[in-house]
Amino acid sequence: MWLNKICYSFLLIFSIITNCVNSGIIDNRIDSFADAKGNCNIPSSLVEEIKGYQPIVNKIVKRALSSFAGKTWESLAELVDTFGARLAGSEILEKAIDYVIVKMKEDELENVHTENASVPHWVRGYENAELVAPFKKNLPMLGLGSTIGTPRGGIIADVIAVESFEELEKIPNENVKGKIVVFAPKWNGYGQTVQYRSSASVAAAKKGAVAALVRSITPFSIGSPHTGNQHYEDGVEKIPVACITVEDAEMILRKYRRGDNMKIHLEMADRNLPMVTSRNSIAELTGTTFKNTSVVVVSGHFDSWDVGVGAMDDGGGALISWKALTLLKQMGLRPRRTIRAILWTGEEEGSYGGQKYKKDHLANEKKEFNFFFESDIGTFEPQGLDFTGNTDAGCIFKEILNLMGPLNATEFQNTSDVGLDISWWTDKGFPGASLRNKHENYFWFHHSAGDTMAVEDPTNLDKCVALWASAAYVIADLSISMPKDLY
Amino acid sequence: MWLNKICYSFLLIFSIITNCVNSGIIDNRIDSFADAKGNCNIPSSLVEEIKGYQPIVNKIVKRALSSFAGKTWESLAELVDTFGARLAGSEILEKAIDYVIVKMKEDELENVHTENASVPHWVRGYENAELVAPFKKNLPMLGLGSTIGTPRGGIIADVIAVESFEELEKIPNENVKGKIVVFAPKWNGYGQTVQYRSSASVAAAKKGAVAALVRSITPFSIGSPHTGNQHYEDGVEKIPVACITVEDAEMILRKYRRGDNMKIHLEMADRNLPMVTSRNSIAELTGTTFKNTSVVVVSGHFDSWDVGVGAMDDGGGALISWKALTLLKQMGLRPRRTIRAILWTGEEEGSYGGQKYKKDHLANEKKEFNFFFESDIGTFEPQGLDFTGNTDAGCIFKEILNLMGPLNATEFQNTSDVGLDISWWTDKGFPGASLRNKHENYFWFHHSAGDTMAVEDPTNLDKCVALWASAAYVIADLSISMPKDLY
Repeated sequence: MWLNKICYSFLLIFSIITNCVNSGIIDNRIDSFADAKGNCNIPSSLVEEIKGYQPIVNKIVKRALSSFAGKTWESLAELVDTFGARLAGSEILEKAIDYVIVKMKEDELENVHTENASVPHWVRGYENAELVAPFKKNLPMLGLGSTIGTPRGGIIADVIAVESFEELEKIPNENVKGKIVVFAPKWNGYGQTVQYRSSASVAAAKKGAVAALVRSITPFSIGSPHTGNQHYEDGVEKIPVACITVEDAEMILRKYRRGDNMKIHLEMADRNLPMVTSRNSIAELTGTTFKNTSVVVVSGHFDSWDVGVGAMDDGGGALISWKALTLLKQMGLRPRRTIRAILWTGEEEGSYGGQKYKKDHLANEKKEFNFFFESDIGTFEPQGLDFTGNTDAGCIFKEILNLMGPLNATEFQNTSDVGLDISWWTDKGFPGASLRNKHENYFWFHHSAGDTMAVEDPTNLDKCVALWASAAYVIADLSISMPKDLY
Repeated sequence: MWLNKICYSFLLIFSIITNCVNSGIIDNRIDSFADAKGNCNIPSSLVEEIKGYQPIVNKIVKRALSSFAGKTWESLAELVDTFGARLAGSEILEKAIDYVIVKMKEDELENVHTENASVPHWVRGYENAELVAPFKKNLPMLGLGSTIGTPRGGIIADVIAVESFEELEKIPNENVKGKIVVFAPKWNGYGQTVQYRSSASVAAAKKGAVAALVRSITPFSIGSPHTGNQHYEDGVEKIPVACITVEDAEMILRKYRRGDNMKIHLEMADRNLPMVTSRNSIAELTGTTFKNTSVVVVSGHFDSWDVGVGAMDDGGGALISWKALTLLKQMGLRPRRTIRAILWTGEEEGSYGGQKYKKDHLANEKKEFNFFFESDIGTFEPQGLDFTGNTDAGCIFKEILNLMGPLNATEFQNTSDVGLDISWWTDKGFPGASLRNKHENYFWFHHSAGDTMAVEDPTNLDKCVALWASAAYVIADLSISMPKDLY
């Protein structure tokens, strides 16, 4: 009996401290979960607590793969089949947001609402590129986000082709002036290669070119162009810029190196209109204990590019965030903290929804935010979660991932990047995670006409929902907040 | 000594018989190479003779993969980079034929010439398809070969979507009248699924539809439409027909089944012009012994569809047929029979070049033709050769394939189909073979913008050339003609 009483007293003290921590009264920095080498050394009581969630995780997984099975795919299909692509600035995106708000209410999620964010309003007009000499060949292409158009009727210009910015730099300006520069960089991973999409127009304009065409940023192609965002620079003339296929870029480079004179006719009626108001879509499963004082965010972005239908980028990520809550709600599982699903807007043009959300919530509600999830790199078969945060949070997170055995998704990786929309928080020290999944072929479809329901698999989506719901639930229900070092 | 003399006498008699056979004097039907169950039982002398070619095959392979390495890819790249796609009826095809004739002469091939064949002259005009209700979505599409266009300005019509001809048949005609029928068959292999491309316009027109759109005939897609030939039927109204992407076809079918009303705006300026004269391109390595009396044909088709550049279909097949001769010529290897490379024209519209060649040569030169090779199903890594012909020829052919160990390409398969352009001969009992290669992904690129040099691998092309040259050489040099049962 006395032992029970002592235990009870400790639990009471622990609970009070935890509550204080969770209410933001005490800073929850804990240094004891790892040794100097970073090896985890979590108190056995916490390990036991986490292990105690295994039956709940098992139930979530079972439900996701039985009576809930296929529902996420169906909802995603209905969404994209009803509205198609959801480009920021478009009316159809706003209609789709209205629709998802209705649907989340139908799912009986809580505090369902939208929050405004201004987004760019770039419009793709008539676009065409054709090699007109030495032979005629249509060049499948897509103007890059924020590009200006050509004059009406287009431009016909000689072609310079290079493999890199350095190669262009070496060509005298007078040889580039008035020409179209084709960038045909080798694929060197997305992170390295995407600079050619982002900066081609500026690099070409600085040398006097009249337009730039860029190899699509993908390792594999079946003649599909891939769009994406690009940036102009103050003080540098704005010129039209588009992506062409990998195959055509390679062909043009070969021809250029053989000394073939080429002319391209490029016509683009793309234009930038004034910013418009869009909305982040938000729903919650409110916590039992720390309803207003501790929040776990699960998120994906709801907007897409205007080609394909954005089923993969990022319909899947948005849907699993929404449906993870629906699943928990239907199971009657309600954790101590609130789980908040956020479907971001305007991500593709530069995380406009994410930045606005930070602006609106960081200053006054900083201590409410416990953990951030974002899924924006595919919802293929889940393997685990990528993590960012301090060592102690990482140790707890690893332990939580051990619960994901039934999904075969226990992989953990420390990374600095867990998603753009939550980077505004994780860059400040908030812990966060992104979905680790078998996305080897993600960039095959990314920002192209191939981003459709054909990429999404019902069972994989169910597994992603189960992983998302399980991890969010455990973190939201733990007796302690996730440790963090805020900057 | 007496034994030697007897042997010599036998060899002499054998040689005389063989010569007679090869000159077409004696029918070369041999029934003794297989038992009743079809198990091969070739005379050991013939086995030894074939085995005797191993050193030559080894040399061919070695040369193809050393000093000859990369040349076929380079020639193919130069061809397709210079002329692009080579649609029958187009000026560019004729220019490319002129070019290849010059190049084959530069390679010092013999009897280099062209032979005329009339081909259809179908022209793709401006084409566009857009889902206009319930939301706007561009539908990447390609008119099918021989399709008519729409009226200027296009047609806007309601949509019917079906998975099969049977499903369409069950819909009352009055519900189809004036509508656009979308065919979204499941992929069931090319042979089965291609009927929807060939016959969609007729099936839809019979029910009163104004146009037909067909799921592209491919198992995998990244938003690419795939063109191909289609057929109108006498007495059935001609309506425009195009392929759309797999993804869009599936989406439209899902929407239709949910009861969504859809409208498509379809505009096509495609048109059929009068037939024009094109040419089969021919070159030889003339035989030492049976120069004019026994010919082994190696072939591929030189024309292509007008999307992509026809590097795979069938630039690769045409090039290995040309370069197999170049390789043998450069090595100073000249077999007893003539090896003739034929680069067919007008294959895509229905083997117009192949049919004309048969018409010009079958009646008077029947007995000259010893064996036919055709490569028109990719030039990926070679695995062996598919065969058609009588049992005895098959037995000899299997033995020849055993020589291809250095290429790891000894696989043999009996089949009825070794290629459309040589089918006019093999269907009459001439033995023939086609290239067996790792073409699992062939239809991913087939008839699409993805049919480019990116699909072709230099080393695989070299191996294909080596296999083509080796097999053709041995057959052309053997002491006996390939057995055949002509119908």
